[in-house]
Amino acid sequence: MRRLAVCSLSAEGFAPYGEVLDASGPPTNFANNGTIEVYRDIAGIDVAADGGRVCLSVVRARGRALPFRIDVMESHPLGSQAIAPLGTASMLIVVAPAAGPLDPDHIAAFCTSGRQGVNYRRGVWHHPLIALNSGGDFLIVDRAGEGKNLVLEKLVQPLEVFVPD
Amino acid sequence: MRRLAVCSLSAEGFAPYGEVLDASGPPTNFANNGTIEVYRDIAGIDVAADGGRVCLSVVRARGRALPFRIDVMESHPLGSQAIAPLGTASMLIVVAPAAGPLDPDHIAAFCTSGRQGVNYRRGVWHHPLIALNSGGDFLIVDRAGEGKNLVLEKLVQPLEVFVPD
Repeated sequence: MRRLAVCSLSAEGFAPYGEVLDASGPPTNFANNGTIEVYRDIAGIDVAADGGRVCLSVVRARGRALPFRIDVMESHPLGSQAIAPLGTASMLIVVAPAAGPLDPDHIAAFCTSGRQGVNYRRGVWHHPLIALNSGGDFLIVDRAGEGKNLVLEKLVQPLEVFVPD
Repeated sequence: MRRLAVCSLSAEGFAPYGEVLDASGPPTNFANNGTIEVYRDIAGIDVAADGGRVCLSVVRARGRALPFRIDVMESHPLGSQAIAPLGTASMLIVVAPAAGPLDPDHIAAFCTSGRQGVNYRRGVWHHPLIALNSGGDFLIVDRAGEGKNLVLEKLVQPLEVFVPD
């Protein structure tokens, strides 16, 4: 089976796919008498197409083991999708560029720190949530509304994602 | 000084002020071959007034000790505001009803579990973020746009929030 090594998630590595949700780099400002560092407006929430509105959900995911086999990818043509841990919970993030049909040769895999979230840009191919610990809760910020906002694509050849030594 | 005891945060107790962001009660549906419990569309994100848009931010807060003295409360007349921990991080939530001016006799205080978030309904009085551990990161979902969306009110008599024995 084709194999793909996981990288640690960083803003730079994830830039082609969207934004990392974390407090890294210099803050945009301070608040509450300097007790709070603010990183303001860090993700493009893009849900208004075809009359969509923003929708907050929470999901509780069963933990999955690595190596993990990727058989299918999905994309949301009408909206961005953000996912962030409520409580410490790591994710395996598997993505491919938004432009055009899924290209299996351009799939990338990242592992989050347990505190990081991500925002998938509208149309970015990604695997459905893969939690690496059981009982992890995640907050989702995505689109609600009319229209077909889910495209699934099966991989002709499955891909095994692994952590390099 | 007037004193106010903290309660554990629950959906029922917080209902007058907004929604608790957590996975509690029966899920709305399952996803990913049953590996994920979904609690969909659990909060009223209300940011469109006066041309507002949704804004995602992350803040890193210094931890504060209990008992905590409340001198000021704020409200956002143009939008809801959601706040949720990225990584385990507890908050002290201090609120008062939205209708009309701040009523110091109707302030309530809740402590989160470290995994729970909240969504303050538009106009609900609340204290700026009080993190109970240092280094906690929080995701904010609120409104960006024109207009005066912050009202501050100083308490004539400060209030001490404490954890009962």
